Amino acid sequence: MKMILTIFFIFSLISISHASVVDFCVADYNAPKTPVGYSCKSPEIVTVEDFVYHGLNKIGNTSNIYKVSFQPAFDEQFPGVNGLGVSIARLDILQGGVVPLHTHPDASEVLLVTQGNIVAGFVSSNKVAYIKTLHKGDVMVFPQGLLHFQINSGGNTAIAYTSHSSENPGVQILDLALFRNNFPSWIINATTFIDYAEVKRIKALFQGSD
Amino acid sequence: MKMILTIFFIFSLISISHASVVDFCVADYNAPKTPVGYSCKSPEIVTVEDFVYHGLNKIGNTSNIYKVSFQPAFDEQFPGVNGLGVSIARLDILQGGVVPLHTHPDASEVLLVTQGNIVAGFVSSNKVAYIKTLHKGDVMVFPQGLLHFQINSGGNTAIAYTSHSSENPGVQILDLALFRNNFPSWIINATTFIDYAEVKRIKALFQGSD
Amino acid sequence: MKMILTIFFIFSLISISHASVVDFCVADYNAPKTPVGYSCKSPEIVTVEDFVYHGLNKIGNTSNIYKVSFQPAFDEQFPGVNGLGVSIARLDILQGGVVPLHTHPDASEVLLVTQGNIVAGFVSSNKVAYIKTLHKGDVMVFPQGLLHFQINSGGNTAIAYTSHSSENPGVQILDLALFRNNFPSWIINATTFIDYAEVKRIKALFQGSD
Amino acid sequence: MKMILTIFFIFSLISISHASVVDFCVADYNAPKTPVGYSCKSPEIVTVEDFVYHGLNKIGNTSNIYKVSFQPAFDEQFPGVNGLGVSIARLDILQGGVVPLHTHPDASEVLLVTQGNIVAGFVSSNKVAYIKTLHKGDVMVFPQGLLHFQINSGGNTAIAYTSHSSENPGVQILDLALFRNNFPSWIINATTFIDYAEVKRIKALFQGSD
Amino acid sequence: MKMILTIFFIFSLISISHASVVDFCVADYNAPKTPVGYSCKSPEIVTVEDFVYHGLNKIGNTSNIYKVSFQPAFDEQFPGVNGLGVSIARLDILQGGVVPLHTHPDASEVLLVTQGNIVAGFVSSNKVAYIKTLHKGDVMVFPQGLLHFQINSGGNTAIAYTSHSSENPGVQILDLALFRNNFPSWIINATTFIDYAEVKRIKALFQGSD
Amino acid sequence: MKMILTIFFIFSLISISHASVVDFCVADYNAPKTPVGYSCKSPEIVTVEDFVYHGLNKIGNTSNIYKVSFQPAFDEQFPGVNGLGVSIARLDILQGGVVPLHTHPDASEVLLVTQGNIVAGFVSSNKVAYIKTLHKGDVMVFPQGLLHFQINSGGNTAIAYTSHSSENPGVQILDLALFRNNFPSWIINATTFIDYAEVKRIKALFQGSD
Repeated sequence: MKMILTIFFIFSLISISHASVVDFCVADYNAPKTPVGYSCKSPEIVTVEDFVYHGLNKIGNTSNIYKVSFQPAFDEQFPGVNGLGVSIARLDILQGGVVPLHTHPDASEVLLVTQGNIVAGFVSSNKVAYIKTLHKGDVMVFPQGLLHFQINSGGNTAIAYTSHSSENPGVQILDLALFRNNFPSWIINATTFIDYAEVKRIKALFQGSD
Repeated sequence: MKMILTIFFIFSLISISHASVVDFCVADYNAPKTPVGYSCKSPEIVTVEDFVYHGLNKIGNTSNIYKVSFQPAFDEQFPGVNGLGVSIARLDILQGGVVPLHTHPDASEVLLVTQGNIVAGFVSSNKVAYIKTLHKGDVMVFPQGLLHFQINSGGNTAIAYTSHSSENPGVQILDLALFRNNFPSWIINATTFIDYAEVKRIKALFQGSD
Repeated sequence: MKMILTIFFIFSLISISHASVVDFCVADYNAPKTPVGYSCKSPEIVTVEDFVYHGLNKIGNTSNIYKVSFQPAFDEQFPGVNGLGVSIARLDILQGGVVPLHTHPDASEVLLVTQGNIVAGFVSSNKVAYIKTLHKGDVMVFPQGLLHFQINSGGNTAIAYTSHSSENPGVQILDLALFRNNFPSWIINATTFIDYAEVKRIKALFQGSD
Repeated sequence: MKMILTIFFIFSLISISHASVVDFCVADYNAPKTPVGYSCKSPEIVTVEDFVYHGLNKIGNTSNIYKVSFQPAFDEQFPGVNGLGVSIARLDILQGGVVPLHTHPDASEVLLVTQGNIVAGFVSSNKVAYIKTLHKGDVMVFPQGLLHFQINSGGNTAIAYTSHSSENPGVQILDLALFRNNFPSWIINATTFIDYAEVKRIKALFQGSD
Repeated sequence: MKMILTIFFIFSLISISHASVVDFCVADYNAPKTPVGYSCKSPEIVTVEDFVYHGLNKIGNTSNIYKVSFQPAFDEQFPGVNGLGVSIARLDILQGGVVPLHTHPDASEVLLVTQGNIVAGFVSSNKVAYIKTLHKGDVMVFPQGLLHFQINSGGNTAIAYTSHSSENPGVQILDLALFRNNFPSWIINATTFIDYAEVKRIKALFQGSD
Repeated sequence: MKMILTIFFIFSLISISHASVVDFCVADYNAPKTPVGYSCKSPEIVTVEDFVYHGLNKIGNTSNIYKVSFQPAFDEQFPGVNGLGVSIARLDILQGGVVPLHTHPDASEVLLVTQGNIVAGFVSSNKVAYIKTLHKGDVMVFPQGLLHFQINSGGNTAIAYTSHSSENPGVQILDLALFRNNFPSWIINATTFIDYAEVKRIKALFQGSD
């Protein structure tokens, strides 16, 4: 008898705190996007599947010039990380493959090698190149916005996972930024000192115009 | 004559600055929510009532197992605090009452005792328990995300107000997180070392299943 | 026998997590200050007293022109709030007293009235004055950086507590900023349109020079 | 033949990274506003014009009591800065003109003088007035939320540009906050010590009521 | 001849930009700590080893009651992540092992399973338990500050890596917070409803006092 | 008589608020640096000169390969901006000069043209080049971390000022990052597809080794 009353009493406390709390903001891809990520899906329709991502459990398509597959679980792929300031991606680098020089404009990166050997490095604003050969289990950090790369340094396919300090790190691949768009060749030449003919040669490789 | 011209001149400056400024973002509960709070109500329809909250001026319902009423003025109740990084709540603890162990995942808390005596404390990650008996006018701070509690330490009803470093602090009450939902009893037992039978006993008390 | 081994095993897990965690940053007033607050006192010498503040439990000195006592528990007074993004202060306004127009450059404020009646208000950048008479238990929010005031609106001493979205809100009192320093009177006149003689009159009142 | 295959291979890498990246959030003025700015326009319809602003290339209207034109390129005027934490404005101060005492509640300011001479200054919370005569090419910084001013210190029209640490700095002009609205004169008198008659006189000048 | 001049000219540009840039803040463990991490080591003595961590390349000590090894590469272990807002840790869970219920007060977590099978879950403030069995390559996210756990769900040792949205996530393990310190048993009983005798029993297991 | 008493009363209020406020954090170059900037100089020794910078009032050294002078007023040069989230720099581009492709890892940029004509542009992560010819008075924004450039597009020396969303934006110049250090040529070739001989040619130009 006493127990029944007690249980009844609990409701009033719960009803208050139930309404007033949101711990996460699962991305609603159909609502407006904001400077800090997607609008939130209503908590009532959020399920555990929003917090789990299966897209990294096998190698992606490596049939490209870099012999690499890069599979992000950023906010656009993985709605549960929206607004939480962290995300992950999987990297597979075939023998002879290379992750080209690139930056993440909005995030630092921690790289974890889980298979194979990788030469990785970044260049600081002070023009120092920090380069290291990493083996299985090694971790390396690349500070926000700096040019960095990874190369399979021998042996079979290397696998690594990258963790980022944002759910939307951005990826600016140097080659694609320069050579795979309508960025005029004369400007590339003028602002990088790369020979005009060489610019044209690489542009042809990457299907860039101008 | 000169004055009339002068007054006319002022308009042009004002019309510019009037349009370009927003100082606050009163919650629009009917528009999308974002990782940093609600969308903003149009400033034209904001009134002083959006910045004033009357919900804390009397004791709430204490007919619960904890003999406590907790009344938040968070962004969900008080639209004016949306986006401003601060909020407040009122706590009434009857004689023999207790605010159970809980955390605020997204905010630190400053507690102010305005009536009665309270034993309050928190446990750090380093497993140190910081505990103190507080009297009227005393203040205590609980760092973000750490388990803390308050107990009426004798005498009549104690009243306190909590200030938070977010308009949406979140509240995770340990008991309710463990025992008042479908969190499987075997997992609770396995991950807390609380005896299975004891888990079942408290679950019954809190109407949890599984 | 088994228990003894088990207890021994626990140590290894604990020793790892013990070393790697800091949950708070209690102010060390003797070490360098940074753009985000004081350096941290070593956790080993932190005690519960660092997290408790007794300075607000009675009225402060009201023998001033405003008939007000303002007692902050900001990071400079209360080392435990350093780095936590929240602080509190106590306000006592005698009959006929007034908290003069002021801003907090770095924080929003939530005001809670615990005794008496207060007319409070703020002015937005859009030149709208939001003003309200508050009674015991009422709460009002003042967005960051905007001019606001509180006046005892009749009856006995009014008491209120202010919560802030920073441990270092700053306080710029308009009168003191204009009239109690070496801010040249001709500049005040030129940039506010307050009559030069009136500037001089108030300067005399507040002991300002120039 | 090999080249054709290679180019084909590139597509798969690109299609992944193309979808997952957003580097900016150009303001969509027709979608909800949030505590951190406007919602984002779809990147597909963004053009270079969203990132360029032509509104500062000539003097604005100076036919006002201050003999000043202030032209902001904040998020409301310049959609490209939305969410990026920086903005700019142009200031023209005619001979005898003055930028009245004001604050930016949400941003610090760096002032650059590009023509003429300006006496500029700010007052700290500690009631120190920092004042300096600036010449062409000089730069001065005004910390967030503090009262500051600029005066043409002689010669022809002075021109300056202000850079801000937010795309929405806000502008609270002291005169307009006090005297050009319905802020009751008795409250201004009570909370600033400015003589009631003087308040009324300036209110008449600025068309304020009450 | 022209080339020699050109090379000489470059120096002046470089000398300016060399001095003015710092991209990272490698932890100096001997200087003051701040609310946002360690002070920075001078860039001149930073080497690539500061950005590489080898501590996660083999299993840690699992001789504990949980049959788990948890090895963080947080700012205290890995100086290169200081100030960068991201970190990583390695988790090995033996057959029958369990990562007990815990929170990270200052970070969200992304878990990546690289070997074995894991039942993982978290409880929201709204008292919903989100639980899922994860297999090799699966990823799950745990929002900041919420109670979560991982259990080896069968088969051999499971291995996972956790990525965090802070270089100093904090770890509050529920068992250790409650039972392995001087947190008085009567308070635990009063604030959790766990039977007093049960509290005492678990305290004995974890060597807690009081 | 009454006045004398009044003035005496003011002291008590002032003494409280005087001690508790810091509005700025002028860089102390001799104290530890933190992840968010320099430690603060004691406010007592701060003068107005800490908030004023004269270094941008004339053209810098343009005797370099780019025919450009870039003069920052970042936290390392201008102590007053420390911790305030904004900074400025001056750019002079001689006829035929060019600001080479570069990024700011930690800040967005607003460019203001005050003399001459400039072709400016940036490339997004989505490989779109946004390019525009700017004239005197035009403003352009470059989002954080993206490659951008400026070219004198004809006529005499062009002058521009850049505003940044950080007091420490960082500057990574692509040429210098690739070609003016010990970054191995084979890695540059492998990670950019620029021909090895071309890499060597530009390295010679920029005095890079390896």
